[in-house]
Amino acid sequence: MFPRNNPVAQPTYLKNDTLIRALLRQPTPYTPVWVMRQAGRYLPEYNATRKRAGSFLALAKNPDLATEVTLQPLARFKLDAAILFSDILTVPDAMGLGLYFAEGEGPKFEHPLRDEAAIRRLTVPDPGSSLGYVLDAVKQIRRALDNTVPLIGFSGSPYTLACYMIEGGGSDDFRIIKSMLYTRPELLHHVLDINAQAVLAYLNAQIEAGAQAVMVFDTWGGALSDAAYHEFSLQYLQRVIAGLHRTWGGEAVPSIVFTKGGGLWLEDIATIGCNAVGLDWTVNLGAARRRIGDQVALQGNLDPAVLFSTPAAIRSEVGAVLRQFGAGPGHVFNLGHGVSQFTSPEHVGALVDAVHELSREYH
Amino acid sequence: MFPRNNPVAQPTYLKNDTLIRALLRQPTPYTPVWVMRQAGRYLPEYNATRKRAGSFLALAKNPDLATEVTLQPLARFKLDAAILFSDILTVPDAMGLGLYFAEGEGPKFEHPLRDEAAIRRLTVPDPGSSLGYVLDAVKQIRRALDNTVPLIGFSGSPYTLACYMIEGGGSDDFRIIKSMLYTRPELLHHVLDINAQAVLAYLNAQIEAGAQAVMVFDTWGGALSDAAYHEFSLQYLQRVIAGLHRTWGGEAVPSIVFTKGGGLWLEDIATIGCNAVGLDWTVNLGAARRRIGDQVALQGNLDPAVLFSTPAAIRSEVGAVLRQFGAGPGHVFNLGHGVSQFTSPEHVGALVDAVHELSREYH
Repeated sequence: MFPRNNPVAQPTYLKNDTLIRALLRQPTPYTPVWVMRQAGRYLPEYNATRKRAGSFLALAKNPDLATEVTLQPLARFKLDAAILFSDILTVPDAMGLGLYFAEGEGPKFEHPLRDEAAIRRLTVPDPGSSLGYVLDAVKQIRRALDNTVPLIGFSGSPYTLACYMIEGGGSDDFRIIKSMLYTRPELLHHVLDINAQAVLAYLNAQIEAGAQAVMVFDTWGGALSDAAYHEFSLQYLQRVIAGLHRTWGGEAVPSIVFTKGGGLWLEDIATIGCNAVGLDWTVNLGAARRRIGDQVALQGNLDPAVLFSTPAAIRSEVGAVLRQFGAGPGHVFNLGHGVSQFTSPEHVGALVDAVHELSREYH
Repeated sequence: MFPRNNPVAQPTYLKNDTLIRALLRQPTPYTPVWVMRQAGRYLPEYNATRKRAGSFLALAKNPDLATEVTLQPLARFKLDAAILFSDILTVPDAMGLGLYFAEGEGPKFEHPLRDEAAIRRLTVPDPGSSLGYVLDAVKQIRRALDNTVPLIGFSGSPYTLACYMIEGGGSDDFRIIKSMLYTRPELLHHVLDINAQAVLAYLNAQIEAGAQAVMVFDTWGGALSDAAYHEFSLQYLQRVIAGLHRTWGGEAVPSIVFTKGGGLWLEDIATIGCNAVGLDWTVNLGAARRRIGDQVALQGNLDPAVLFSTPAAIRSEVGAVLRQFGAGPGHVFNLGHGVSQFTSPEHVGALVDAVHELSREYH
């Protein structure tokens, strides 16, 4: 139903364009690799910058500091991409819900959507004003990167944003949003409609500011039933993808969709028009490839817990993931989830080097 | 490789044998239903008994009180099975690890397996002595049930037990056990080998004491990578299933395997010799049935969060699950996970009634 996002141009201005090429399923000399949350708490230099900033949010909202931490992992490891340092919940924060981080807990909102009136008041924020700090960071990071590797922009998915907006924070059982889903579906659809418009405007603004690929993180879609996933998450992911700039400045801007726990829905995600699908570590990459053919590129999917082991074990498990995917283009190596704060930075280095060394035989 | 567990006898002594028949894929007049954790905190009478017992563990270890709470949901709802009130971690407790429950937290062990010496000291407990309280409860419940509905026995899976034994409690990232898995796999295999022997002896003892079906809960296998799931969880589930009494007293004793988050591995689970596979709510039952044909019965899989909605919405969602499975035998209705403590008992009643009413047209 939705045509594939075919590349209209090949990036040539990038010194390392392996990520963009792999997302477009074009040949590369090796498998490119980046790591979800590669700028994060496992790095002492990140913790030092965060301490200077005072808080995670102060760090995310300061373009100078966001640029600094975005570049930190690239100084250590031969990563094939940078990813904007930000949070998946900047959009509802810009809607006025008041994002904050309680010590030792996940993100929370001061003003969660707890009644219909609050939901009816929701509007799509103008990214140019309320999210200007993100766009400034994108521009600054692009300048600092100097076309060495591409910069990935991102957002939370409409449904994942709604989870936090309605629950007020993380949840084990999603009691509030699922109660709404099953009793007032039209109200949840209203939130998701606003969210989809907001995410789309936000991602396009990131592209206009310089993001060379974009990723949508659907962290909680995997906690839905099969039917509810299609109606309340995938449908809105599709709307976002359908509206994205597919090229900017004459260059293709590939898109990646990642529903954690969404391995069962791979065929469906692969048809919404994105260039690549992110997979968590429960999925066998070879089986995934057989299921979707050459429709999309695949990104993933080493278990982040492998990084708790040893360089030798990491190398062996990297080899296993590469072998599962097999020969040919269309694989971006990554973890199946963000890197844990308890990871040794040396082990991330071992991962990156192993991917580069061991993947050459498949290209 | 492993032959299906074909029924050798049809239960005739049970007043309601729909559960056993459905697990054996034999015709029934309607779809039988039971609810994981049906004896639990959502019931005020359960909370009253638990208060009298003093703690969850005191309740589980007292056969009189365990019998009382096992029967409580059957007094309220027209459930088609009873499930033994116990904990999935009784086996490692019997190994001497010291199971306890910290207030507001999940299960923990006083003596987790933190070094190789502790692992080498592990032995298979004799269920007749160290787990006698469970077997006494099984016998008492069977007497109290008076063959109205069958009694399901259960255990945690070898891998799930190992998670708690090695982590010392629940975990978000399974850092300790996965470090062992990737650096000392032979050591983890030793634990799993002991666990598989212990679970098998325990389930067979439950069958000998009167359990008419058994279920293995693999709560954490779904957090493994595809390769690790097969090597460290499924292999040991298979060993357990292979050793189970398939009949007792001339009656078939069907087995159910439930790996939460294991939908991707359905074909593999379906071949280990169990009679039924439990599915969480992310799986489309119709798609599951097309994938495995008539190899096994399927148990599940309503999202427990549906019970937070309204009787009308519950009825509608029950109808959707029944429609997904479609016509014919081999479906046991259940939730896709245990019922939440925040559930209204009336809503469980609405679920049970809806299953019985709406399923007749499919039989």
